[in-house]
Amino acid sequence: MSYQDEILPREKVFRDPVHNYIYVQYQVILDLINTSEFQRLRRIKQLGTTSLTFHGAEHTRFGHCLGVYEITRRICDNFQRNYPTKVPGDGLWDDSERLVALCAALLHDIGHGPYSHTFEHIFHTNHEAITVAIITSPMTQVNQVLRRVSPDFPQKVASVIQKTYPNKQVVQMISSQIDADRMDYLLRDAYNTGTKYGTFDLTRILRVMRPYSGGITFEIDGMHAVEDYIMSRFQMYVQIYFHPVSRSMEVILDHLLQRAKEIYTPDNQQDTALSPTLLLPFFNGEFDLKDYLLLDDGTMTTYFAQWRGSHDTVLSDLAARFLDRKPLKSAEFDEKSKDLIPRLRDLIQKAGFDTTYYTAINDSYDLPYDAYDPHLKKPRTQIELMQKDGSLVELSTISSLVSAITGKFSGDQRYFFPREMLLPSSSELELFEPIYREFNRYILNDHIIQPKEN
Amino acid sequence: MSYQDEILPREKVFRDPVHNYIYVQYQVILDLINTSEFQRLRRIKQLGTTSLTFHGAEHTRFGHCLGVYEITRRICDNFQRNYPTKVPGDGLWDDSERLVALCAALLHDIGHGPYSHTFEHIFHTNHEAITVAIITSPMTQVNQVLRRVSPDFPQKVASVIQKTYPNKQVVQMISSQIDADRMDYLLRDAYNTGTKYGTFDLTRILRVMRPYSGGITFEIDGMHAVEDYIMSRFQMYVQIYFHPVSRSMEVILDHLLQRAKEIYTPDNQQDTALSPTLLLPFFNGEFDLKDYLLLDDGTMTTYFAQWRGSHDTVLSDLAARFLDRKPLKSAEFDEKSKDLIPRLRDLIQKAGFDTTYYTAINDSYDLPYDAYDPHLKKPRTQIELMQKDGSLVELSTISSLVSAITGKFSGDQRYFFPREMLLPSSSELELFEPIYREFNRYILNDHIIQPKEN
Amino acid sequence: MSYQDEILPREKVFRDPVHNYIYVQYQVILDLINTSEFQRLRRIKQLGTTSLTFHGAEHTRFGHCLGVYEITRRICDNFQRNYPTKVPGDGLWDDSERLVALCAALLHDIGHGPYSHTFEHIFHTNHEAITVAIITSPMTQVNQVLRRVSPDFPQKVASVIQKTYPNKQVVQMISSQIDADRMDYLLRDAYNTGTKYGTFDLTRILRVMRPYSGGITFEIDGMHAVEDYIMSRFQMYVQIYFHPVSRSMEVILDHLLQRAKEIYTPDNQQDTALSPTLLLPFFNGEFDLKDYLLLDDGTMTTYFAQWRGSHDTVLSDLAARFLDRKPLKSAEFDEKSKDLIPRLRDLIQKAGFDTTYYTAINDSYDLPYDAYDPHLKKPRTQIELMQKDGSLVELSTISSLVSAITGKFSGDQRYFFPREMLLPSSSELELFEPIYREFNRYILNDHIIQPKEN
Amino acid sequence: MSYQDEILPREKVFRDPVHNYIYVQYQVILDLINTSEFQRLRRIKQLGTTSLTFHGAEHTRFGHCLGVYEITRRICDNFQRNYPTKVPGDGLWDDSERLVALCAALLHDIGHGPYSHTFEHIFHTNHEAITVAIITSPMTQVNQVLRRVSPDFPQKVASVIQKTYPNKQVVQMISSQIDADRMDYLLRDAYNTGTKYGTFDLTRILRVMRPYSGGITFEIDGMHAVEDYIMSRFQMYVQIYFHPVSRSMEVILDHLLQRAKEIYTPDNQQDTALSPTLLLPFFNGEFDLKDYLLLDDGTMTTYFAQWRGSHDTVLSDLAARFLDRKPLKSAEFDEKSKDLIPRLRDLIQKAGFDTTYYTAINDSYDLPYDAYDPHLKKPRTQIELMQKDGSLVELSTISSLVSAITGKFSGDQRYFFPREMLLPSSSELELFEPIYREFNRYILNDHIIQPKEN
Repeated sequence: MSYQDEILPREKVFRDPVHNYIYVQYQVILDLINTSEFQRLRRIKQLGTTSLTFHGAEHTRFGHCLGVYEITRRICDNFQRNYPTKVPGDGLWDDSERLVALCAALLHDIGHGPYSHTFEHIFHTNHEAITVAIITSPMTQVNQVLRRVSPDFPQKVASVIQKTYPNKQVVQMISSQIDADRMDYLLRDAYNTGTKYGTFDLTRILRVMRPYSGGITFEIDGMHAVEDYIMSRFQMYVQIYFHPVSRSMEVILDHLLQRAKEIYTPDNQQDTALSPTLLLPFFNGEFDLKDYLLLDDGTMTTYFAQWRGSHDTVLSDLAARFLDRKPLKSAEFDEKSKDLIPRLRDLIQKAGFDTTYYTAINDSYDLPYDAYDPHLKKPRTQIELMQKDGSLVELSTISSLVSAITGKFSGDQRYFFPREMLLPSSSELELFEPIYREFNRYILNDHIIQPKEN
Repeated sequence: MSYQDEILPREKVFRDPVHNYIYVQYQVILDLINTSEFQRLRRIKQLGTTSLTFHGAEHTRFGHCLGVYEITRRICDNFQRNYPTKVPGDGLWDDSERLVALCAALLHDIGHGPYSHTFEHIFHTNHEAITVAIITSPMTQVNQVLRRVSPDFPQKVASVIQKTYPNKQVVQMISSQIDADRMDYLLRDAYNTGTKYGTFDLTRILRVMRPYSGGITFEIDGMHAVEDYIMSRFQMYVQIYFHPVSRSMEVILDHLLQRAKEIYTPDNQQDTALSPTLLLPFFNGEFDLKDYLLLDDGTMTTYFAQWRGSHDTVLSDLAARFLDRKPLKSAEFDEKSKDLIPRLRDLIQKAGFDTTYYTAINDSYDLPYDAYDPHLKKPRTQIELMQKDGSLVELSTISSLVSAITGKFSGDQRYFFPREMLLPSSSELELFEPIYREFNRYILNDHIIQPKEN
Repeated sequence: MSYQDEILPREKVFRDPVHNYIYVQYQVILDLINTSEFQRLRRIKQLGTTSLTFHGAEHTRFGHCLGVYEITRRICDNFQRNYPTKVPGDGLWDDSERLVALCAALLHDIGHGPYSHTFEHIFHTNHEAITVAIITSPMTQVNQVLRRVSPDFPQKVASVIQKTYPNKQVVQMISSQIDADRMDYLLRDAYNTGTKYGTFDLTRILRVMRPYSGGITFEIDGMHAVEDYIMSRFQMYVQIYFHPVSRSMEVILDHLLQRAKEIYTPDNQQDTALSPTLLLPFFNGEFDLKDYLLLDDGTMTTYFAQWRGSHDTVLSDLAARFLDRKPLKSAEFDEKSKDLIPRLRDLIQKAGFDTTYYTAINDSYDLPYDAYDPHLKKPRTQIELMQKDGSLVELSTISSLVSAITGKFSGDQRYFFPREMLLPSSSELELFEPIYREFNRYILNDHIIQPKEN
Repeated sequence: MSYQDEILPREKVFRDPVHNYIYVQYQVILDLINTSEFQRLRRIKQLGTTSLTFHGAEHTRFGHCLGVYEITRRICDNFQRNYPTKVPGDGLWDDSERLVALCAALLHDIGHGPYSHTFEHIFHTNHEAITVAIITSPMTQVNQVLRRVSPDFPQKVASVIQKTYPNKQVVQMISSQIDADRMDYLLRDAYNTGTKYGTFDLTRILRVMRPYSGGITFEIDGMHAVEDYIMSRFQMYVQIYFHPVSRSMEVILDHLLQRAKEIYTPDNQQDTALSPTLLLPFFNGEFDLKDYLLLDDGTMTTYFAQWRGSHDTVLSDLAARFLDRKPLKSAEFDEKSKDLIPRLRDLIQKAGFDTTYYTAINDSYDLPYDAYDPHLKKPRTQIELMQKDGSLVELSTISSLVSAITGKFSGDQRYFFPREMLLPSSSELELFEPIYREFNRYILNDHIIQPKEN
């Protein structure tokens, strides 16, 4: 039997809190899970600094990747049971696409590193490019497994993730506005944070999902289930992913890495005992895939723990703030109140803070849903519903709820600053009372405002 | 208002997946949570290597400690609502004990470090002693918070954890056979592994729990709920905590640290870039509390990642096996089949493995329940039930189920060895076929057996 | 101790699948639950014909009433813990209002009878008026319990339900757009149908709810939790409460009772054995409260079972259709396609059905949320959120989602007709083929359409 | 295509709170669900009087029957996926048995009537015999559907339920100590009562279940999951099914029907308006299947509501006690204290109660698990586990927990008597004080005791 058809004598399962069991039937899938690169995902938290706001959210990308695989597997099962292709080109499901779909699902996030968003900002890496590199580079175990299927299989799997794979059904299973990736992370993040907002009816969505010639569509009967999913997604964004405390911890992380990068230049590595061995290639801008694969969340915090003892007070203070979870405070602003920020920055400077490292502007925006717009840089696949006579309608044309948020950004702009500006200790207050009093005039109801005349 | 009575203007909550909300009303509690020592628990997994078997079990001791606090808080609420003391010595609940109970609950595990069980085995630390040290040592933030309540308050909190505190109700809330600690970890571990075995009826247990002069007892009506809790506990032990794969990863960890300790002697620290800076004090046997508090799970795996590149092949191989999750295999044995182990060890050696690092004997035993036995080294507080007329009966005298497991150990003894002995690759098989064939004759149905005569 | 202050020696609990435990502390509440009128609610399903679509939805008004009581109790607890009144008129919570609030919560639905909506349509009863009658009429056990508190207590409780009670906080707990009633039924109906749409974050809503001088408001931090509740409510309406199959069974019930009423006139009661003894007062239009309290769901179906044997074929057929769940089919229409209905009715008549009994027009509309509009007949209390400085904002002004559905009706208009028109049996098809073919031209994608020219 | 192979074009689902979705693929199954006899199960509560103790337990036999069908379907799916037969007689699963298994699962309880246990006691019916009658009698819709598969198909389905069907795998799916029936009712009853005791790991049990030549066995790996199921079952019995309040309501029901049967003799039917038309055939002992199928829970309570107005005070009082839920009290007794019951009965009589109708002795016993014992009247199929080498071991030989309860009866014997004996009203107390005082000397801690000498 060829490797790609090698079925386990008895299906293997992984116990999963979200999907109960994850079922593995192919030897290829089991081998991919057992690679070094995939196991590394056990050491990278799915939500980064969010666990500092919602302490339950300590789950890693490992479980999420298994979950995306499992949802994809269930979609394939449903498609094969109810919509198997009969004639090539009939727009129904061709089950010979199953393995490429499952592999792409499992590996779609394999390029993530520790605190990806911040890491990419400081070190100019790109987790999507690294995902493709891990799949296609001959040095990885992942690539070695995939190549056993066929020499061009790694490239096929990569192309699904890059959305250039010809079968749109496979591509949309993994990435579209209602795909296995999003469905898993909403449920998983909701489960682990202990919030209910992300809960939607997965079984029903899977049931109304169906293949057609243009990719994936949904039975019209399931319109409200799809609508409910969009609403859940919206709620997770505004309540969890955009939480100001998590973003504030991300700001600290960003400034901490920035500071370290400035200090650990090739010419300036006096104290080798405190030297962040595994990070140096990134500080120097000379890293390769092997260096990248040695990193995980623990690497970062290990060096932070070392940096606590640094003589650089900014470095040691920011490291302590991150490890001990001392968030910055923040206030919302809009286009108008934005002009007041320099004034605030000025006051913060006067109170003794280096504003480069202790303040930041941070946006969090997301489009909860968008109908197709060819003018966008990254146009999204819109959600289509199939009526009983086979015709399609776009979701926002029949859902007034979805229509209300289509193409509108959610989120806010915030200015971050030291907690001390709002809640000084008594000794601080003594020193800088007029500054604090002035600062507070600009903040009302969590927003930056033009103060009233005295 | 004195610090110990300082109530937050509005109660603060932590969203928790197990208890929904954790409610904080005292400023003292909030300050303790915000200490450096307590925040560090976010970086120490509750179940160590178990997450390598049940991938959902990535939760940390941080959430567990909050959970124990919350259950204790609910017990106090119930006691105060239904059984408030009227006359000193009436055996009912004196609510002035609440703060010491809450602090002890929150801090009972503060001395845990990374992979405690193994770490203690190799480095001869003791998490209980360290817990007491963190609470009573003036250098910690925890101690500084507690001292603000009163100079003797740290010692009082420590004595609850040491079970020497005079009020037995407070002691038994935190440690007895059915205490806030066990109740939280069973529910939390069940939630995160995604298994159902640990689920018991917390609300009902809390409802039937009541204070009496000898400590804590349970209304007789709740007998079956208590029984069900004992059964859940039993199931969690045999199905989760004693899982052979997790124990096998613990064996690898143990051997890896042992090997590193042998290599990184003070005289032998050639390669400083690969030197495990934060672990050195432990290798040297000269660590203090400050050194200990710098460690977490990430420290360990960061050094493991560095060790992958070591020239010592045992060190690098064991590090890779741990990071990439390559468990050993194992077989059960009993007193009789134990004698066959030297023969197996011999074969493993012949197949090219250093048996010091690649084999191990490991027991996992627990007493699911025990009635009081003064002859034991650590006699357990037995579970008593109160009848309507106020008389007490011990649980195992009225529950045939509990009686069936009282004082009986659960668990097994296993011999661990390289997976290759059972499932060699084709190249390995070629080299050592007769050895493998011989080895397999000793293993049947997951047990070591005396092979049949040929 | 006066009756109104009589606290149970130990609180009593009812195990509840939605709220886990329902806690009863007052003797008055326990006595009310034990009245004949309240126990009768065990025999009246909460959702009537919905259980014929979602078979899990067999729960009764008994559990719902306990649930509304429990949520109200928790609101009172939170208000008393965090917002107790200090000075009369300070807009905070006066806990002496607790008992009237709890009684009104428990009794708010006590006047419901079997299949209320249909029953009221045919027999011109009104469950709200009957609720008030049960509370205030000296003949009921409920009234006797309430009168023991004080002579004017029944009237006070009734006035809360009638929304004329002076304390707006108490009134809004029980009836407003986000009250204990709605919160319980959404959660309970979701639990029992097994759908997830009705799930919202009750604990969080309760936490952000607070009293103010104008009634009840919500902390601004909880805006998204409130928004999520509105969305859940919307989903429950469109997916559960307005389900066409349940409405179709309601149509059959309506027509069946209508037919029975026409047959069982005082002059025409030939067959006393089949006579619906307990319904006769309603057929005759001469019923009193006592007659009403003898009815429940079982009364109705018992007579339906008898009517199966009736010589009146419409009566016996409709009874069988109801008992054996043979729903009508339906199609949506709008203002334009409405004009086609007479043509459809004509065809149905030609196919042999009496259209009076076998067809119906049915609307299901609901306002998912409405800001206050003084021009409405029943203006709704709008949802206000309190900002940090104490000022209030109305929900739809800050939530684009809520704004999108504010004041817009959800639901649809449907025309109901016999299933046979769409799916005739082969013998029926033989007889009326051209009629069926013609009929089907008017139906497309579940809507009535103007057929295309042939 | 023959009727038995008729697959629905798209699988139909029923939303179920326990199993999420119930999937129907065969036209035969859908037709069976739509029969009059099956729909009737919607009007018969699964747990009878238990809903008077646990108000959530209002679910009916309809949902349970669907659930048993669904679990059976999943077992078949798993068997077909992992253990399909290759050679006749190889002991693996032959999927041509699927339809008979599914039909038997769906119909196994079709013969249940209202409050079966009590009904059978008074009217000498037998729900198992009626199940067989409904399946095999040509007058039922169920039989008509089954006969379309083949003339002998009804008999085959019946023989599965009667355990005479030759394929033991099919028989044991539906009835054995760990079958689809038990698994569904434990989960469903736990869900609806809102208790957690019945929760066990269904997915894991289904995964370790496998066919063998002797019927059904379980992989040894799943031993603890099976053990946990047995424990859950035990807990449900002792905590839910044997609850004294439910049993007390059953006693009242029994005595009420007994009284009615004595009154409504053929010669004594004065008041036809109050005559229980549908019950008369049972009072007269001359009923047929058609009469039986007209009854449901509502029939009973409708007549009880009528009987409230009866001139017979025992009849009207017992009817009111049942409808208004006024349970009797009870006390446990054992072989020794049994002798005291006549003395208690005497006192009850003296206090004015007719002991025939107001007292009762009631046992509730169940064997939580039994190894096979050929001496028993109804020997149970023991639970076997399959080791890796294919050999079987019986559960209780390897589980000390199961061994502890094997063959031991659980439950208790209780004596039921009027609540007034323990808690007389003040007027009653005045009349009979010495009697009550004497009675209370015999009751301690919920048990009948030999009173202490005065």
